[in-house]
Amino acid sequence: MKRVYVQDIKSKISEEVTMMGWVHTIRDQGRIKFVLLRDITGIAQLVVGEEKTEAFKIISDLANESVIEVIGVIKEERQAPNGVELQIDSITVLSKADPKLPIPIIDKSNAETEQPTRLDWRWIDLRKPEKALIFKVWTWMEQYMREFFVNDGFMEIHSPKFMSTPSESGAELFEVKYFDRVAYLAQSPQFYKQMAMASGFEKVFEVGPVFRANPSFTSRHDTEFTGYDFEISFIKSHYDVMEQEERMLRFVIEKLKQKFGAEIEKSYGRKLVIPTTPFPKVSMSEAKKILKKLNVPSEKDGDLSPEEERRLSEYILKEKGHEFVFVTEYPIDVRPFYHMRVDGDPTLTKSFDLLWNGIEITTGAQREHRYDVLIKQATEKGLHLEPLQHYLNFFKYGCPPHGGIGFGPTRMLMKIFDIPNVREVTYLYRGVKRLTP
Amino acid sequence: MKRVYVQDIKSKISEEVTMMGWVHTIRDQGRIKFVLLRDITGIAQLVVGEEKTEAFKIISDLANESVIEVIGVIKEERQAPNGVELQIDSITVLSKADPKLPIPIIDKSNAETEQPTRLDWRWIDLRKPEKALIFKVWTWMEQYMREFFVNDGFMEIHSPKFMSTPSESGAELFEVKYFDRVAYLAQSPQFYKQMAMASGFEKVFEVGPVFRANPSFTSRHDTEFTGYDFEISFIKSHYDVMEQEERMLRFVIEKLKQKFGAEIEKSYGRKLVIPTTPFPKVSMSEAKKILKKLNVPSEKDGDLSPEEERRLSEYILKEKGHEFVFVTEYPIDVRPFYHMRVDGDPTLTKSFDLLWNGIEITTGAQREHRYDVLIKQATEKGLHLEPLQHYLNFFKYGCPPHGGIGFGPTRMLMKIFDIPNVREVTYLYRGVKRLTP
Repeated sequence: MKRVYVQDIKSKISEEVTMMGWVHTIRDQGRIKFVLLRDITGIAQLVVGEEKTEAFKIISDLANESVIEVIGVIKEERQAPNGVELQIDSITVLSKADPKLPIPIIDKSNAETEQPTRLDWRWIDLRKPEKALIFKVWTWMEQYMREFFVNDGFMEIHSPKFMSTPSESGAELFEVKYFDRVAYLAQSPQFYKQMAMASGFEKVFEVGPVFRANPSFTSRHDTEFTGYDFEISFIKSHYDVMEQEERMLRFVIEKLKQKFGAEIEKSYGRKLVIPTTPFPKVSMSEAKKILKKLNVPSEKDGDLSPEEERRLSEYILKEKGHEFVFVTEYPIDVRPFYHMRVDGDPTLTKSFDLLWNGIEITTGAQREHRYDVLIKQATEKGLHLEPLQHYLNFFKYGCPPHGGIGFGPTRMLMKIFDIPNVREVTYLYRGVKRLTP
Repeated sequence: MKRVYVQDIKSKISEEVTMMGWVHTIRDQGRIKFVLLRDITGIAQLVVGEEKTEAFKIISDLANESVIEVIGVIKEERQAPNGVELQIDSITVLSKADPKLPIPIIDKSNAETEQPTRLDWRWIDLRKPEKALIFKVWTWMEQYMREFFVNDGFMEIHSPKFMSTPSESGAELFEVKYFDRVAYLAQSPQFYKQMAMASGFEKVFEVGPVFRANPSFTSRHDTEFTGYDFEISFIKSHYDVMEQEERMLRFVIEKLKQKFGAEIEKSYGRKLVIPTTPFPKVSMSEAKKILKKLNVPSEKDGDLSPEEERRLSEYILKEKGHEFVFVTEYPIDVRPFYHMRVDGDPTLTKSFDLLWNGIEITTGAQREHRYDVLIKQATEKGLHLEPLQHYLNFFKYGCPPHGGIGFGPTRMLMKIFDIPNVREVTYLYRGVKRLTP
C-alpha cells in the first residue's frame, strides 16, 4: 500500500491508507488514545481504541518522537486538525525514541530553549515545522534563482575551493595542510568567476561554500557559509550589474511569495513585499549626507556601520516605500584593487552594496579588466604582484568588460523571515567555537 | 543598440546590429578583411573593405583573441558560416590580446597541446567551443537533476565542510588550522544528509565540493570535486534507493539528449542512449562468477578492480544491451560501518555501486538507523565511539529507515562525452601537484 502524506489525506476519506512519520504527541483518554503524527507535510490525528489490542498496547509504550508506520481508514472528524483522522488498524514501530528528549519539540512555555543548546541538538530543533519551513523556502529560493539564470543563458561553474593565493585579502584566511605545502580555502569564487569571463563563458553563476576565518561572534557572522555569485560580461558599467540583480531578486521574491507567502506570514508574521524595479539608488556620498541630516553618527568615511545601514534603509522605506536600496560608488580605500574606478573620479569605484531592510545582502562592482590598469591599482594598494600573477594573466589575452555580485542565501533568509540571527537560518552553523554536531 | 548573439543573426538580415566577442581568426585578402567573431553561442563572419578606413586600420593592428564590439548590417553571403555575415561599419576594441598566445585556440596540427600546459592556461583552453560545451551540458545536467528532485518533494541542504571528526575514514583527510585547534574538510556530506533524515526532512539532495587528500595521480582522481548526493527516508531496502536513482538518471539523460544530443555527437562522436528502467542488477557474488567465466583475474574478493568494472560493463552491454549495471550486496569488509546488513546474511551489506560503461559512477546503500546495531557495527570495525558520538546521537531520538547515494558530475560527464580523463571535464582541476591557476 502506497504511503499517503499528511497533506493528502483529506482526499482519502473512507480509504485504507498507510501513513508514516514521527509521534508528535500522544493524548491518553483511558480507553481511547489520540496520536498526532508529524511528517514533512504536516500533522494529522490518529486514533485507536482499546479493542485494537495490539496497536493500543504498542502506543501505550511509545515515547514521543518515535517513528511509526500505521495502517488504517481515514474518517471525517470535526475536532481533528483539517477535519479528518486516521483510525488505526495496525502500527509498526520503525524507530524508538529515547523518552528523555534533550530539547523539547513543543515549547509549551513559549520560551524557546536557548540557542547554544538547540544548536547542540540541531536535528531535533529542525523537526519543528516552522524551522523546516526555512529550508523548504531555501530550496525553492535557490531553484527560482537558478531558473532565472539558466533561462537567461547563464552557465554554472563550480570553482575550486583550494587556492595557492588568497582571493580577497590575507586576513580571515584558513590554511590547509596540502601534502608537502600549504593551500588556502577560497574566501570567495571571485578570481574564478572572473576567469570564466576570460574563458568566454559570458554569464556565469556559482553556488558553493565560502570560508572566512572570522574570529567574531556577531549574529551575522560564521566561518563558513553558502555563497551565491554571478558575473556577466560586456557590461557598460556597474549599473548593468545592478539591473540584472534587480530582475533576479524580483523574480525570486515574487515566486516565493506565491508559493510560501501565506505560510511565512502565518509562522513568522512577515508579509513579503514584491519589490518594484528599478530599486532606489544612492551614492555613498549622498548616503552620508542623508545620515548626517538624520543625526546618525558616522563611524568611518566612505563606509556604513551596521547602524548607518539600518537607518538609511528605514529612511528609504519611509521616503520611497522600498525595502531595498543600492549604495553606490564606494571610495577606493574600502574596495579591493580589482574594482574599476569611476570615469572622471579615480577616488571612487564602480561598486555598490545592496541593503535589504537594514542589512547588506550583496556586494558588487564592475571589475577592472585592463591588464595595465589592474597592475597599477594592485601596486598602489601595496600588493605583491608575484603571487597574483596567475590571476593577472586572465586579463592578458583578451577579456571583456565585466562585473558581478556576491551574495548569500542566509542573509536573504534573515530578511525573508525577519529572523535576526544567521545561525537560525543555517542548516548547521559553524563558528569559532562550534564544529559540532 | 541591443547586442545580437551569433546564434540569432540569421533572423536579422538587412538589419543594423551590434555584435560582441572574440577575434577567432583574421583572414587578410588585401583590400578586404574577414574576421571570424566568436561568442558563447557560435562563430560568425565579419567583413570589412578598405573604404571603411578606420575599421580597416583597427583590424589590421588586431591580434587574435582580442575582444571587440562591432556595428554593421547583416547580409546574406553563401560562403560564410550559416550563410550570413556582418558588414562592419564601426569597431571598438574592448580588450587587446597579447599577440603571443601561450596555447593555440585552433589546433591546426590536430594534435592538441599536452594537458599540463593546457591546464596552466585553462581559461584559454576553455574558449574552444567543444570545451565550453562540456560546461553548458554540466549546467543543464545539474538543472534537470534538481528539477527532478524538487518536483518530487526533495529539500536541498548545504551541509558544513568543516568537521570535528572524519566522516568516512581517517585516510585521505585534509586538516585545517581552525583557530586554536584542528578541523577536517568533509570527504562527503554523508553524516549531515543522514542528520537531515533524523530531522524529518525525509528526502534531501546536496550539491557541493568534497575533499579527498588522495595522493594518486590517476585519470580518475582529484583532491577536490563536486559531489552530488541524495538521501531518502522510509525505504524498505536499498532497492528503493536504486529505483529512485534510475528514474532520476533516465530523466536527466533524456532531457540532455533532447537539448544537446546532436552537439555532443557532432563534437565528440558519442551518441547518448536513454537508459530503460529498471537497470540490470547483479550481486557482487554473481559479478565475480561472470568475471571468472570471462577469465578476468580477480584482484580482491568482494570488490571490483577498474579492469573488472570495465569487463563486467562490456558483458552487460553485450548481453542486455544496457550501458548501466548495478552491482549489489558488497561484503561488509569493503563497506563502512554504517551500511545496513542483509537480512539473513550478516556478511553482506544492503549496498550497491552503479557502473556506467565501465566506470563506477555512484555508491549507495541503505544505512543502519538502529542505534544499538550501529554501535555494534562500529565497534566490530574497531572504531572509537567517542569521536563518533555526535553522529551516533542522530539515531537515538527517532530516525526512519533511510538510504541514499553519492555520485558526481565529473564521472557523469566523462561518460556523456566519452572523455577518459576527469581533468578535462573539471572547470579547474586540483591535484597533488596542482593548485594553480
